[in-house]
Amino acid sequence: MARIVMKFGGTSVGDIERIKNVAQLVKKEVDAGNEVAVVVSAMSGETNKLVGYCREIAPMHDSREYDTVVATGEQVTIGLLSLALQELGCNARSWLGWQIPIQTDDAHSKARIKEIDTPLMRERMAQGQVPVIAGFQGVGPDNRITTLGRGGSDTSAVAMAAALDADRCDIYTDVDGVYTTDPRIVPKARKLEKITYEEMLESASQGTKVLQTRSVEMAMKHRVRLQVRSTFAPDTPGTLVCDEDEIVEKELVSGIAYSRDEAKITLVDVADIPGVAAKIFGPLTDANVNVDMIVQNIAEGQATDLTFTVAKGDLDRCVAVLKEKKEELGFQDLIADDNVVKISVIGVGMRSHAGVAQTMFTALADKGINIQVISTSEIKVSVLVAEEYTELALRALHTAYGLDAA
Amino acid sequence: MARIVMKFGGTSVGDIERIKNVAQLVKKEVDAGNEVAVVVSAMSGETNKLVGYCREIAPMHDSREYDTVVATGEQVTIGLLSLALQELGCNARSWLGWQIPIQTDDAHSKARIKEIDTPLMRERMAQGQVPVIAGFQGVGPDNRITTLGRGGSDTSAVAMAAALDADRCDIYTDVDGVYTTDPRIVPKARKLEKITYEEMLESASQGTKVLQTRSVEMAMKHRVRLQVRSTFAPDTPGTLVCDEDEIVEKELVSGIAYSRDEAKITLVDVADIPGVAAKIFGPLTDANVNVDMIVQNIAEGQATDLTFTVAKGDLDRCVAVLKEKKEELGFQDLIADDNVVKISVIGVGMRSHAGVAQTMFTALADKGINIQVISTSEIKVSVLVAEEYTELALRALHTAYGLDAA
Repeated sequence: MARIVMKFGGTSVGDIERIKNVAQLVKKEVDAGNEVAVVVSAMSGETNKLVGYCREIAPMHDSREYDTVVATGEQVTIGLLSLALQELGCNARSWLGWQIPIQTDDAHSKARIKEIDTPLMRERMAQGQVPVIAGFQGVGPDNRITTLGRGGSDTSAVAMAAALDADRCDIYTDVDGVYTTDPRIVPKARKLEKITYEEMLESASQGTKVLQTRSVEMAMKHRVRLQVRSTFAPDTPGTLVCDEDEIVEKELVSGIAYSRDEAKITLVDVADIPGVAAKIFGPLTDANVNVDMIVQNIAEGQATDLTFTVAKGDLDRCVAVLKEKKEELGFQDLIADDNVVKISVIGVGMRSHAGVAQTMFTALADKGINIQVISTSEIKVSVLVAEEYTELALRALHTAYGLDAA
Repeated sequence: MARIVMKFGGTSVGDIERIKNVAQLVKKEVDAGNEVAVVVSAMSGETNKLVGYCREIAPMHDSREYDTVVATGEQVTIGLLSLALQELGCNARSWLGWQIPIQTDDAHSKARIKEIDTPLMRERMAQGQVPVIAGFQGVGPDNRITTLGRGGSDTSAVAMAAALDADRCDIYTDVDGVYTTDPRIVPKARKLEKITYEEMLESASQGTKVLQTRSVEMAMKHRVRLQVRSTFAPDTPGTLVCDEDEIVEKELVSGIAYSRDEAKITLVDVADIPGVAAKIFGPLTDANVNVDMIVQNIAEGQATDLTFTVAKGDLDRCVAVLKEKKEELGFQDLIADDNVVKISVIGVGMRSHAGVAQTMFTALADKGINIQVISTSEIKVSVLVAEEYTELALRALHTAYGLDAA
């Protein structure tokens, strides 16, 4: 017997038939003798519809009212899934964020979970009741509904698993696990049996959309064993996200991520004097623009070129801020380019092995792909290349690191 | 300056443009210096969609989960209307049933309001904030969401008006007031400037759909001045539902209601012995069938015919229950007829004037309309006639009581 949190995303509960299917999956775990808690998202499309309503009325909306509106999506699914479970003879009841309660801070629309009260829920679970919990939502210090930001249901599930001391948190989604890279692009991609928290976190931050970054962070912090599984192929084994110790055969590189959500800005002939970087990036921070990769070319004379990347959606705002301060910053020209892709090679094995970056540079050079920007961390190497090379680069790197399926 | 509760039904908030229109109406009352609280229904169609989901999953659903699901409709509109008001520069915030709280009993899906806490809301209103309150919902003793039954938002509005000691409760709907009868059938119908609680209550119970019966009952009990107004013609004066004392020129008959939601059952040759009525109606009460009009013919010998009416939706169930007990009840035959309409003449003036019923019988006889069943109360006379006579009967009665517009 184990205590399990099962989480189902929007596609998994996208219509009534699918909700009934989810109820079958939950019942199977209950029948196997497990204590089960379920966390669900809104039916696919619902949250977008509700967000659209809010934007239509007020582009700069009060986030407390926004939260009140968008949290209804999950409220509908917990009720419907509880009914579907009851129809199968399963003792189930729905729980809203404020009923548990899932206490959050007051950062409406991107709240963080502070505390979850579980004594009552544990008692009910011990009696065989299945709690069906609304993901994505909590209640703030002002007794108003908060939401955790898009994709927040993964975070709800991990937080519930931590609060309930669950043996496992199974994230059911529309893919059947974590792959070495995107199988739609690289047919030889392999599904990983296990991946470390660190790798999954880098992978999520570098563009892999299987799990939300914050949920992986939280799982790592609380050592929640996360499993990514498919709702539509529930008998296929998924991928376990776990501690490094649990992985016997560690690979040098576990995966290759990519993100098309990048844009590159080059400031030409920036004065090469102390403090200029702070002058440039300060205003961007104030404008809520996140800067990712930064490269400063070696100065020839008094001036240098500075290149950095931002999210595509922030590009226009970023350019506007910089142009406004052109004189103050003293650059000659600003070149913006959003036809770029960031490709990242990730693996905890890098810590102890040299040459991982070199393999990447050689493989890309062999295909004639020019690297525009490079950035590295302890367990990843990222490069920025022209977007048109995405597929070619992914396939070349997948082969170069020996990841291709036999 | 007055304290006003404004209530808007589903059609009034049916889409984003209409919600913005409602915000304008609210702002107008605020700008006029009034303290305003708003109660809203779900966007038209939403509640039906949610009810449909529940039925699809579980025809005999757990009403606690049903309430969790259907209460989301109002939650969406309070958030959206608050945003729309804020866009107009109006200080507004949404309130859910559990946030106020509106305490109800635990009769999920048809709960009754027990208590409403208003100190915080009064304080905010005094500071100029407009509370936007979810109609139709409350919170039960188990801290779970309850709903008040279909049309319950009228009841929420009246209850809020009573709890806030409001000077007036304005019910905005898609008609512009209460008419002497249905203007779609009788073009000469007149809008009433005022109508008494008692008359409105009879009218609502007898089939007029402008206000929900329970909301009128509650308004009468707490002496809340109710006004029925049109969202789409807000400058047209509506109808005030108030105390008899406030109406100077009382008419003998204030209106003529009709209900096609009736079915007639006749039990032929029922034994004419004491206790037989109890034997017949006991099982119907147990089966949750409400019996309305009852007539027992004069007995000729040992047996008599018993005729009564039930709601059309209950007819099949009612017939099944009675047929099962045919031997025990000892009737010869059962005749069911759902081609009937109940027409009611209503007026507090009847209390002191004889001859009102006689005028009705004569007017119908003059048109050759056969009366099947008659029932009377202190302020109304109802008759059951064949459904095909609906229009003819309404027009004849409207003229006979001198209600036709000049």
